[in-house]
Amino acid sequence: MPFDISESLKAQERAKRLIPGMSQLLSKRPDMFTLGSWPAYYSKAKGAEVWDLDGNRYLDMSISGIGACILGYADEYVDTAVLAAMQKGVASSLNCPEEVELAERLVALHPWSDQVRFGCAGGEAMSIAVRIARAATGREVVAFCGYHGWHDWYLAANLSDDELAEHLIAGLEPAGVPRGLAGTALPFRYNQIEELEEIVHKHGSQLAAIVMEPIRSQEPENGFLQKVRALADKTGAVFVIDEISAGFRFCAGGAHLTLGVEPDMAVFSKALGNGYPISAVLGRRDVMAAAQSTFISSTNWTSRVGFTAGLAMIERYQQLGLETHLDAIGKGVRSAWRAASDKHGVPITIGGLVPLSYFAFTEDYTLQKALFIDIMMDHGILASTSFYSMGAHTTAMVERYAAAVDDAFGQIAAGDIENRLRGAPSKVGFGRIA
Amino acid sequence: MPFDISESLKAQERAKRLIPGMSQLLSKRPDMFTLGSWPAYYSKAKGAEVWDLDGNRYLDMSISGIGACILGYADEYVDTAVLAAMQKGVASSLNCPEEVELAERLVALHPWSDQVRFGCAGGEAMSIAVRIARAATGREVVAFCGYHGWHDWYLAANLSDDELAEHLIAGLEPAGVPRGLAGTALPFRYNQIEELEEIVHKHGSQLAAIVMEPIRSQEPENGFLQKVRALADKTGAVFVIDEISAGFRFCAGGAHLTLGVEPDMAVFSKALGNGYPISAVLGRRDVMAAAQSTFISSTNWTSRVGFTAGLAMIERYQQLGLETHLDAIGKGVRSAWRAASDKHGVPITIGGLVPLSYFAFTEDYTLQKALFIDIMMDHGILASTSFYSMGAHTTAMVERYAAAVDDAFGQIAAGDIENRLRGAPSKVGFGRIA
Repeated sequence: MPFDISESLKAQERAKRLIPGMSQLLSKRPDMFTLGSWPAYYSKAKGAEVWDLDGNRYLDMSISGIGACILGYADEYVDTAVLAAMQKGVASSLNCPEEVELAERLVALHPWSDQVRFGCAGGEAMSIAVRIARAATGREVVAFCGYHGWHDWYLAANLSDDELAEHLIAGLEPAGVPRGLAGTALPFRYNQIEELEEIVHKHGSQLAAIVMEPIRSQEPENGFLQKVRALADKTGAVFVIDEISAGFRFCAGGAHLTLGVEPDMAVFSKALGNGYPISAVLGRRDVMAAAQSTFISSTNWTSRVGFTAGLAMIERYQQLGLETHLDAIGKGVRSAWRAASDKHGVPITIGGLVPLSYFAFTEDYTLQKALFIDIMMDHGILASTSFYSMGAHTTAMVERYAAAVDDAFGQIAAGDIENRLRGAPSKVGFGRIA
Repeated sequence: MPFDISESLKAQERAKRLIPGMSQLLSKRPDMFTLGSWPAYYSKAKGAEVWDLDGNRYLDMSISGIGACILGYADEYVDTAVLAAMQKGVASSLNCPEEVELAERLVALHPWSDQVRFGCAGGEAMSIAVRIARAATGREVVAFCGYHGWHDWYLAANLSDDELAEHLIAGLEPAGVPRGLAGTALPFRYNQIEELEEIVHKHGSQLAAIVMEPIRSQEPENGFLQKVRALADKTGAVFVIDEISAGFRFCAGGAHLTLGVEPDMAVFSKALGNGYPISAVLGRRDVMAAAQSTFISSTNWTSRVGFTAGLAMIERYQQLGLETHLDAIGKGVRSAWRAASDKHGVPITIGGLVPLSYFAFTEDYTLQKALFIDIMMDHGILASTSFYSMGAHTTAMVERYAAAVDDAFGQIAAGDIENRLRGAPSKVGFGRIA
């Protein structure tokens, strides 16, 4: 082993005892990488670098805080704004003006929208959006496409035990979700408009909302998004776009702005706060009005920290014109994967959005992935099969990364993988409906 | 009008246009105080003082961030810790060790517990607790007492249209809550053990959880909490204590520690972060294990900010032995109310926990409340009919407050209230099941 991660491993043991699942986020569990060699805990993160608990320093070319840190870690622009907010008090009995300012900024970026509600977390904000859509329509059924978090309204899709079984959200266990919600969440697949048409045909008059990510692993084809919009209009369902992952990857705001479609609601989190907890539900006035007919309220949603971080992130993003950079970095990383794959004859598929790219080894996936992670760590790089662009990533980092990927794919091609692993390969995580 | 609040009123107009309900928290809406004279927005808060957008400075003797800021606003001890965390990066692709440390600290304070999950907001954490309890028992019905937030599992109680109608949670509209949840949330009242017994009698074998606040407006009588514990044991339901309001008011940890009862789960938020978003779900190992059989995961739950704030708050609380101070301040405020009421013949009732006290005018409530708020503002004091003790409150502040309360009650006793109001009286907010 080239470096000592004993302190990180000790933290993992404590976490295992104290926290069911070891982390609050599935995607940050060490067993999603390589249990035993992945450091899992950090003492410091700055720019695109991370230091683990044993003082090892890594270039982070992995999940970038699972997309939360779009500018980079400990970003000076955002942190300066947050510090100023702290000095003025992050909470009091009154409201902070940044709440109103962030609402104004988001509405200005999304001219189809009129009003905003805020939360702290993404899944929570999706739950707010669905509540409002249901209250606005007086209906209950939600048709959805893609990944939308841990809440009952969504996991209810996995309660069905009928012909939709093949559409179930793989790996998202619905234990503890009341069975009375069965039939209230119906999945359709991206670019399969006929699946949504069938839902509309069968359940149109009960359809409260059509909920989807604007784009994930494929580009929209044959006017897919416009057809979804038309079906929402036809049925009177609220069209909700979940921008928690895709938002701010292609422009300052939702990916839907670049895809020529206007929803009735859009939901943001992750990138919006650059690591500080904030989420936002934007909507048209006629839909959002329903938020006043149902009880949606929480103390911690009023903390100044998240609003301030959101405002600063957007300001900095626009100053930098960050979308161009995120795209260039993502393309560089994809090129590195493709080149190494071709050179060493290790077959892979590449998918995702350019700034949120992933690859999959097509043979012997879990073992090859585990060895890839270990070898990249030998090069002082945190990497797995997903990559999220940050503002702090540079071309030089991508070059250093490409050289390491080349070495890793070469070693993978040499075979005898099982005997060379330092950590246990990950079990496959949950699949996502494309 | 003694001072100008025109900037605050402008912010309110913008908020009204942009945010349905004007605030993310019902209790911070200006129409819960006096619409038109309550400043509603702050530029700065420090200690127990607040500055509004027009530069008016107030002593805050009202809701103290609705109980979030238990030490005081912009507390130096907590903010120093958070700043250090920011400099080390509040998020990265790895986990922060403070997550494990806070879990350790909370379990040490609550020896009956073994494991912890975290969230950002209180209502969200209650939803996590209920999901885990349902997954652990394979049952769905929840018996509850008190207030537990905005989520579907709780508002489902208001879907019932049967004999329980008188128990409905007043003012909490369940629009948008799926009707398939009807019958899954059954209320019982504090100290009315026979109501819980009846639920157990009818639904015992389907009871997933008994959820309650440990104490709110009354002391437990006749071993009420121990009887609830026994009923949970009898039925196999998970006993969940919601410490979001009561936690850290009587000791470093849950109020249940001082009440001689051990639950199976306890939920914290508000005071835990002193204004930074954090919530925690503690539980016994056999219950918490179920968190691994159901999907509960969110990116923003991994932010270092909340864990750091929680650790610092607890440390500072213990250094100060804060519970003694909170109690003394609360008692001083109650004495001021009682003295002014007796002196001026303005009848009131007093209730709540000593550090979270409230009073109600027994005649002409809304008008008297509105005049009280206005007159207190004339004295440079933010005050309403609820008071939450903070560490930053001093005896001198209570004395200044008592003098202002005496003046306010005197003016109320003089009558002709309607013609003297600057703002519109609040409509009554939601009632809470005692």
